[in-house]
Amino acid sequence: MLVVKLGGSAGIDPAATLDDLAELSKSERVVFIHGANARMDEFERKLGREPRQVQSASGQVSRFTDAETMDTMLAIYAGMVNKRLVEALQAREVNAVGLSALDGRIARGRRKETLRAIENGKPKILRGDFAGSIEEVDTTLLDLLLDHGYLPVLTPPALSYDGEAINVDGDKLSLRVAMAFKANALVILSNTAGLLADVNDPASLIKEIDVSSDESVGSAMTAAGGRMKKKVQAGCDAVEAGIGKVVFADARVERPISRALAGEGTVLRSSAAIGVTE
Amino acid sequence: MLVVKLGGSAGIDPAATLDDLAELSKSERVVFIHGANARMDEFERKLGREPRQVQSASGQVSRFTDAETMDTMLAIYAGMVNKRLVEALQAREVNAVGLSALDGRIARGRRKETLRAIENGKPKILRGDFAGSIEEVDTTLLDLLLDHGYLPVLTPPALSYDGEAINVDGDKLSLRVAMAFKANALVILSNTAGLLADVNDPASLIKEIDVSSDESVGSAMTAAGGRMKKKVQAGCDAVEAGIGKVVFADARVERPISRALAGEGTVLRSSAAIGVTE
Repeated sequence: MLVVKLGGSAGIDPAATLDDLAELSKSERVVFIHGANARMDEFERKLGREPRQVQSASGQVSRFTDAETMDTMLAIYAGMVNKRLVEALQAREVNAVGLSALDGRIARGRRKETLRAIENGKPKILRGDFAGSIEEVDTTLLDLLLDHGYLPVLTPPALSYDGEAINVDGDKLSLRVAMAFKANALVILSNTAGLLADVNDPASLIKEIDVSSDESVGSAMTAAGGRMKKKVQAGCDAVEAGIGKVVFADARVERPISRALAGEGTVLRSSAAIGVTE
Repeated sequence: MLVVKLGGSAGIDPAATLDDLAELSKSERVVFIHGANARMDEFERKLGREPRQVQSASGQVSRFTDAETMDTMLAIYAGMVNKRLVEALQAREVNAVGLSALDGRIARGRRKETLRAIENGKPKILRGDFAGSIEEVDTTLLDLLLDHGYLPVLTPPALSYDGEAINVDGDKLSLRVAMAFKANALVILSNTAGLLADVNDPASLIKEIDVSSDESVGSAMTAAGGRMKKKVQAGCDAVEAGIGKVVFADARVERPISRALAGEGTVLRSSAAIGVTE
């Protein structure tokens, strides 16, 4: 069982990932999860709205999601991007089914309506946020689809306990789905070769993060900066939850999933766990 | 087995339909199908694009769907509107799953890339249309969901045989799904009391269309005009395919589905078929 997340940053052509997915899904159960961040920003701007990125006290960056932003999010994540991926998989003879984590209550959590954030350097309290964190994943629907030969293509948002759409982080969704399935591997693809020590230097790839080493995680977190911090945290959590193989890798190469599984990119592991069998 | 279609015209608050659906789906298998026409036009205009409605030689009106229009269609039909309906059903404790007819190859057909149309009174040949008509419906995925207590919420587009998203008419999708399931009833809800003899006079409701009478169908077709012609045709085809109860009814009343099933609205029937048992 494999969970693959394709990031939604600019500069990613999904074709190579979809080709690889079409091949891999013949012999393995795969849940495919995607983001749509760049398309979302592009669309918000076309609609005359400036995307509002806010930073929490802990330094994590997220999108402030009022009701109108959620409308666009549903349109772009669960509509345009999700269905274009489904279409492209169907064109590759893969019987894909596109879903948001709302559908069939796949992922649920508590809505956090109030966001304490730092915006333009100033602390602020923002109300009316449709966001939250995932507290449970129900694999029933995904299992049903996998059992019958469908490839689930999943994207945020998730569902609050009050039945509202809530914006959740796509990497965390991938992590929680991988955990719920006790997946063998979690591959997170984006528009970099992995985690870079210096974001402007593609050669500065961090080849490994040792989750059991405070020093290794600390320097990864420093390298990560704003948006990537959540990704590194999700990856560390995945290793600690027992996911055997967790890799951040490049979506912009041929066979990106197979390469990641072979160790290209940033591999997260725990030397503590490996020590047992050595 | 019941198929309910909620139109996407302006002035429809889906709440009453969803309340009714939540009640009815406790005791019956229901597939819920929806349009999003008015939201789609609104969105196209927000993006600075004027919706392009074209009339075929036979007088049927449809949307010219180039690749960009299809992007918006996926966003609004399969994203924003579909997922807001799923959310509203989840808030009513109904475990809804939103799908386009692309997903799981629910509805397939041939793409008709070229559209012979009359635009501003002149005949034209328009190329690059992502549209087609449904040739087959595969109930496997919908059945699977219904068997496991999920309520499918379905919307266009469908899938071409070459794996492309194709715009298909929502009423025809409802018809084809009802036929594939041999549904007991097909209820088509919109923002009128049913089919009106005079579109400006709500009191001119045509209470019955006798599908076996050329005269009855003819006057219904005359009353229908542009967009509604397809609806009347789909309704007639449904009766002829043996769907026991076919009703065009008002979405803007309390319990709209139950009322339609009780005979409020325009009921389509065949006097020829009824004659057998009289």
